Amino acid sequence: MSVTAPRGFRAAGVAAGLKSGGARDVALVVNDGPDAAAAGVFTANRVKAAPVLWSQQVLRAGLVRAVVLNSGGANACTGAPGFQDTHATAEHAAATLSGIGIGIGDDDGTGTGRGGPAIGAGEVAICSTGLIGERLPMDRLLPGVTAAVAELAVDGGLAAAEAIMTTDTRSKTTVVAGTGWTVGGMAKGAGMLAPALATMLCVVTTDAIAGPAVLDEALREACRVSFDRVDSDGCLSTNDTVLLLASGASGIAPSQAELTAAVTEACRDLARQLIADAEGASKEVAIEVVGAADEDDAVEVGRSVARNNLVKTALFGNDPNWGRILAAVGTTGAAFEPDDIDVAVNGIWVCRGGAAAEDRAKVDLSGRQVTIRIDLHAGPAEATIWTNDLSHAYVHENSAYST
Amino acid sequence: MSVTAPRGFRAAGVAAGLKSGGARDVALVVNDGPDAAAAGVFTANRVKAAPVLWSQQVLRAGLVRAVVLNSGGANACTGAPGFQDTHATAEHAAATLSGIGIGIGDDDGTGTGRGGPAIGAGEVAICSTGLIGERLPMDRLLPGVTAAVAELAVDGGLAAAEAIMTTDTRSKTTVVAGTGWTVGGMAKGAGMLAPALATMLCVVTTDAIAGPAVLDEALREACRVSFDRVDSDGCLSTNDTVLLLASGASGIAPSQAELTAAVTEACRDLARQLIADAEGASKEVAIEVVGAADEDDAVEVGRSVARNNLVKTALFGNDPNWGRILAAVGTTGAAFEPDDIDVAVNGIWVCRGGAAAEDRAKVDLSGRQVTIRIDLHAGPAEATIWTNDLSHAYVHENSAYST
Repeated sequence: MSVTAPRGFRAAGVAAGLKSGGARDVALVVNDGPDAAAAGVFTANRVKAAPVLWSQQVLRAGLVRAVVLNSGGANACTGAPGFQDTHATAEHAAATLSGIGIGIGDDDGTGTGRGGPAIGAGEVAICSTGLIGERLPMDRLLPGVTAAVAELAVDGGLAAAEAIMTTDTRSKTTVVAGTGWTVGGMAKGAGMLAPALATMLCVVTTDAIAGPAVLDEALREACRVSFDRVDSDGCLSTNDTVLLLASGASGIAPSQAELTAAVTEACRDLARQLIADAEGASKEVAIEVVGAADEDDAVEVGRSVARNNLVKTALFGNDPNWGRILAAVGTTGAAFEPDDIDVAVNGIWVCRGGAAAEDRAKVDLSGRQVTIRIDLHAGPAEATIWTNDLSHAYVHENSAYST
Repeated sequence: MSVTAPRGFRAAGVAAGLKSGGARDVALVVNDGPDAAAAGVFTANRVKAAPVLWSQQVLRAGLVRAVVLNSGGANACTGAPGFQDTHATAEHAAATLSGIGIGIGDDDGTGTGRGGPAIGAGEVAICSTGLIGERLPMDRLLPGVTAAVAELAVDGGLAAAEAIMTTDTRSKTTVVAGTGWTVGGMAKGAGMLAPALATMLCVVTTDAIAGPAVLDEALREACRVSFDRVDSDGCLSTNDTVLLLASGASGIAPSQAELTAAVTEACRDLARQLIADAEGASKEVAIEVVGAADEDDAVEVGRSVARNNLVKTALFGNDPNWGRILAAVGTTGAAFEPDDIDVAVNGIWVCRGGAAAEDRAKVDLSGRQVTIRIDLHAGPAEATIWTNDLSHAYVHENSAYST
């Protein structure tokens, strides 16, 4: 049930004509409370889209009552006019929501508010995804927001998840049950999947009681071991945003550890769905680095292998080319001795001690799931990075995206 | 005339059966002197092939009398046995060359030595290129070295350049004329082309008089602005080697600046040839970064764009997708303000001040040559990085390489 699985949330997804073809392209998620605590994690890219700049400001207060998300345009590299478009979208959403009223008591399934406080633009986060460098058609987006407000429903989570898809072939949602409270989430992302967030938008909701600081800690830890360990194509987006909203509607306040664990599970589930649906991928590849001196080393090694085009094309060709894997490991600064490294591909140890071991012909790469295990023999730490192969379909899809 | 353009050098290229198909695969370059000064630059990859480990030791003394190069196998990740193979190759070459005699006076065009001092294995550098992780067939390689010694000739440079090709579609050679002295060179490299050397082998020769320290300075500066600015696929090889050998046969000792300039010109010429023949490439892309605070920033920005698969696939699709270029710039730590950046593609300023400017439809990407100019407006420094697009042919070639 996506973001509306926890109590206290309504959502909608409508078709506003931003995408050609009539698919849903504007999503709205509303927190009916009683709380409106929130945390956010944003792209590390220094070229940040207007909605990222806006939402970073909104999140500073730790309070979000609504999130407007659109596909069909990233509103990145659009200068001051693009920022004004984002601001206008937030103003329009706030005014329209104030008109119908949102707030306590909206979990009765009717999809209409029984009145709540007026909300301000500064309580509305904005997310956009799509082509960089073009202005959004505001004459379509604002009516879309109006329509989304009208369609808000406690079962609207799936429609919202659909509305944020770009080249995604399916929507991504998750639900994790706590003890008397719930975490729900939706995400999109298919290209520009890289560390410090994939090219992705993600909204995670919970009806737990938790303040902004607790949410922030839970979200940062969850992202660190989920989205930040996904590296499909090494490209870091201008629009990446992950939001965590808490309504407190369950009346239960889990411990920090409980909340972090549930949010992490939700984010990991969504991250796996992103890799499973990455643009043009024919393989889902887990790079398990073990025996590292510390976790940073393990992540660095895994990421280096995940970003190596020669490894990725070899996997596309069902070729267990461990030599390319070692060459990728060798570009890192991690602690290891080249002559100590072992590498297994789908369970076959094709390399031991930095040289050929078991017959590579034994490796079965015919399936979609691939596991590369790299033992550095340098310590006790480990980490897993998720990536994809580099396929003809990736080249095709990304050479034709904007034209 | 490749490495034999300068006086004092002989070379050969023979077919030893390392490659299937009967193409030349063993090259030999001999410095007949009177000098035998040398310098080398090697891969920064920490997983170094046996011939790299060997040649680094040889170069420590600054003296090289011969270089054996083979295609058809990288002898990387082959452990101690692989290193012994390299050692045995050097021993065999030294013994065979001592038998025919090399040294002063061999520039008479007869291709036979008139006797010189016996040479040791420690004066023979070794370079290998090909698949990682497999032992070389020594029963073919050593007879190949014997045959190469027999075919040494003052016009053997082209055959040698042919013998080091792997997926190269044509051999790469260069000649640069000094005043009374000459620089010649050959190189191979088509995949794993990345900074801190492309996947490449390169031998540069000169008949100038220059000691190891002068050669070292000339070679490091030349590589810094040539091979180190080539980044075809972001993958750093285990075998990269660039050697500079000086015979002193011209009797002329140019200044450091003169020698550096000529070696730089030779390396730049070879680097351009590498990019022009990179695996599967349909575009040769110059990324000119100007207005940088310093040269390091310019190189970092250029390299980030060169390594961005979304930029590279867009270029393959003839799509002047400047948004992806800005997203790549944004991942760097270089000094810039996102709202100041200008980007031109083939002369059309599609982005000014971080937002859309001239109509992208004006950009003509139908040709093979592409120039991306990025003005950071942050200072006076600039650098150009050379790269390629990411094409179906790259995926095809690299998904099928070892199988």
